[in-house]
Amino acid sequence: MDFTDWMNTRLPSVAAQLEQGVRSTREITSEDGLDLAGRNDIYEILDDILAALFPGSYGRERISNENVNFFLADLLRHISFNLDKHILAVFRYRCKKENCDHCDCNTRSAEALMHLIESLPRIRELLMLDIQAAFEGDPAARYRDEIVLSYPCIEAIATYRIAHLLYELEVPIIPRIMAERAHSRTGIDIHPGASIGTRFFIDHGTGVVIGETTHIGNNVKIYQGVTLGALSPFDKDGNPRKQQKRHPDIEDDVIIYANATILGGHTVIGKGAVIGGNTWITEPVPAGAHIYNKDHREGLRRRAGRKR
Amino acid sequence: MDFTDWMNTRLPSVAAQLEQGVRSTREITSEDGLDLAGRNDIYEILDDILAALFPGSYGRERISNENVNFFLADLLRHISFNLDKHILAVFRYRCKKENCDHCDCNTRSAEALMHLIESLPRIRELLMLDIQAAFEGDPAARYRDEIVLSYPCIEAIATYRIAHLLYELEVPIIPRIMAERAHSRTGIDIHPGASIGTRFFIDHGTGVVIGETTHIGNNVKIYQGVTLGALSPFDKDGNPRKQQKRHPDIEDDVIIYANATILGGHTVIGKGAVIGGNTWITEPVPAGAHIYNKDHREGLRRRAGRKR
Amino acid sequence: MDFTDWMNTRLPSVAAQLEQGVRSTREITSEDGLDLAGRNDIYEILDDILAALFPGSYGRERISNENVNFFLADLLRHISFNLDKHILAVFRYRCKKENCDHCDCNTRSAEALMHLIESLPRIRELLMLDIQAAFEGDPAARYRDEIVLSYPCIEAIATYRIAHLLYELEVPIIPRIMAERAHSRTGIDIHPGASIGTRFFIDHGTGVVIGETTHIGNNVKIYQGVTLGALSPFDKDGNPRKQQKRHPDIEDDVIIYANATILGGHTVIGKGAVIGGNTWITEPVPAGAHIYNKDHREGLRRRAGRKR
Repeated sequence: MDFTDWMNTRLPSVAAQLEQGVRSTREITSEDGLDLAGRNDIYEILDDILAALFPGSYGRERISNENVNFFLADLLRHISFNLDKHILAVFRYRCKKENCDHCDCNTRSAEALMHLIESLPRIRELLMLDIQAAFEGDPAARYRDEIVLSYPCIEAIATYRIAHLLYELEVPIIPRIMAERAHSRTGIDIHPGASIGTRFFIDHGTGVVIGETTHIGNNVKIYQGVTLGALSPFDKDGNPRKQQKRHPDIEDDVIIYANATILGGHTVIGKGAVIGGNTWITEPVPAGAHIYNKDHREGLRRRAGRKR
Repeated sequence: MDFTDWMNTRLPSVAAQLEQGVRSTREITSEDGLDLAGRNDIYEILDDILAALFPGSYGRERISNENVNFFLADLLRHISFNLDKHILAVFRYRCKKENCDHCDCNTRSAEALMHLIESLPRIRELLMLDIQAAFEGDPAARYRDEIVLSYPCIEAIATYRIAHLLYELEVPIIPRIMAERAHSRTGIDIHPGASIGTRFFIDHGTGVVIGETTHIGNNVKIYQGVTLGALSPFDKDGNPRKQQKRHPDIEDDVIIYANATILGGHTVIGKGAVIGGNTWITEPVPAGAHIYNKDHREGLRRRAGRKR
Repeated sequence: MDFTDWMNTRLPSVAAQLEQGVRSTREITSEDGLDLAGRNDIYEILDDILAALFPGSYGRERISNENVNFFLADLLRHISFNLDKHILAVFRYRCKKENCDHCDCNTRSAEALMHLIESLPRIRELLMLDIQAAFEGDPAARYRDEIVLSYPCIEAIATYRIAHLLYELEVPIIPRIMAERAHSRTGIDIHPGASIGTRFFIDHGTGVVIGETTHIGNNVKIYQGVTLGALSPFDKDGNPRKQQKRHPDIEDDVIIYANATILGGHTVIGKGAVIGGNTWITEPVPAGAHIYNKDHREGLRRRAGRKR
């Protein structure tokens, strides 16, 4: 068939088939239209929030010293206006899904938005502590500015702290879109449901996975490829363990080296423990313990021996 | 030397040297010009195809319910117009490389384009099954919409299903550009040559590698960091094993946990087998077997012991 | 509180708090304003440099054969004009940090910029050798063009060769921003301080980490998930080992398979050695040695046995 003929005759029927598919899978679309929480809108709003937290580093605009306040006030207004619509849309979406008629979506979504914006100065303070931890923890770091501008963990942790706040306010879907944006850009996958203390540092970061019910204390340092995951996502009957504690607890001052795998909701890594690289941990580890895999220990021993 | 002087005197000679380099490596450029399959064009076309498959979630435009058909017909026309040129360019490129004078590039490229567009409704149906598998397989999933909007495996698998179709139609280069776009965004590297059944789910996904000659059955679930790779890409004489079966077969209902490495063209993982995390598999595994690495088994044993 | 009221009354005070935070952490901002080395500007300049190295493949513009020279001269001028400002800004930033009054920032930054631009033809020649190595090393590669257009290692290595040159010229911060751009896009994290020889190939690449003081010889091939890292980033007193040799040396003709971890500043992998997948190496390996982890060796043995 000639290409132009095909464009005029066959292509419209493909469009009709696709449309039928889209309409028949109602669950997968908002009942108010198809534009539920378009990912790209959320990405832009997230970029704007990061630009408000780190003006001049993130974001596109140059800001002179005199214009900082003007820039921030304008940007916060812009974020509020755009994000409010999306939070309202996902609240309404959940109400319809759950046949809820008693919650006041409009009020709840406005409150969530206002709470997020009012928390940004506190989030910035927390991020300054994370940046300080990165500066102290990485021998390759020369300047704190370098960390803001080039360390993937800062974008990942900043996004996590924003998404976690929305998760706690029970905003559906949007926190996951934000988390996956950071995952896409940094290779660091932090579920918005995890709780993470102050002075958190992730070096390199590609392949890090931190599950929904993980608790992490203060002053914890982890390296690339570390998984804080579930021992099995399914119970004995093969059903997914939804809304159960499935992921480990990491107490204060713990260091976890590259590609360690720590699994299970009963696995507590005690305060000050050091977990070596490439280890596989499914049991609690006492405070202060140093765990290495055998190969690693042998390597260190031979190394030490050679020095005599 | 003064910077402005340098701009006027030295810089043009650098441009001339670069030009000479570009022209002298003819193999690396199309003979019709330098714009063979510009990556960014292919990226935009891929984004448009994803927007046609998931209108309102992917893509930039908001679509009201009444405008779905209009949106889709317009978008498919736009995709067809843009992709047709690129498919023709890569077909012609191959003909010149292989001194082919008998194939009819124009007809073949138009046919490939039309076949892709007409297959989109079927690809969407397959993706709905993948989304359902993700919903059933991940305890953290709340809604199917959340999966479309935020799970990296959906973008990776959708891109794979599009690229695989073009690979089967023997379209050169473009499928790899598409696959690497998804790899860049998701950390999931699926070669377009792999064959993958229905209800495929990848959780988290960063670091997953699925090689060119891999076969995957239906209802298979894999986690981050899983490699389905070649035992050695070189034969005894050190030559790369081009166009040989080099990667494993994964039968129906298999689960492969995080960071497992399964290698080799003779390695078949039998129906319903469960492969534990951090395992290294270079031998066939019988149907229904559960394989864990020793450390893992010990971990589970100690764990079970403690409960008594 | 009503949303509009909140926008008018509360939001300005949030902006004021954020501004105070920004101003009180002077270290994290340039004293000349907040627009120190905005990341997005550096990203665009890097994209332009890649487009100058691979016109028609990278970059957005289509270039006819006659216009190559015009395109390149124009693009180099554009890069020079934009990058010069940023190099000057980071030089001045360092001077202020270090209370330096004797270096001539303006001259040094112009020299660094000119040296980079004049080196681009040489960098292109090196990249052609890397592309050739990829073509010879990957059974799935069909054409060299396909490698330029779709192999993530080309973007990662090209960015490394640019960033390394700036690092050697002691340009602060910008090389790290460039390296992390490539890391974000490819999952390959090469510190600009590493030194890497000719014909370097990285297959798949997600999760690769190459530390600041790593030396890599010629004709080295590595796979996804390989870490060339530090044994411990901290000395006995817990201080970070800044500016010490912390990462391994990889001699010519070495192959390192997926997810191998090679650590420590005294760890030399000798010429022609082959390091198997999932190994953990903290000791020197002699030239020509083949190192596999026990599981792997057993796997291969059983495999060989079956063939009899």
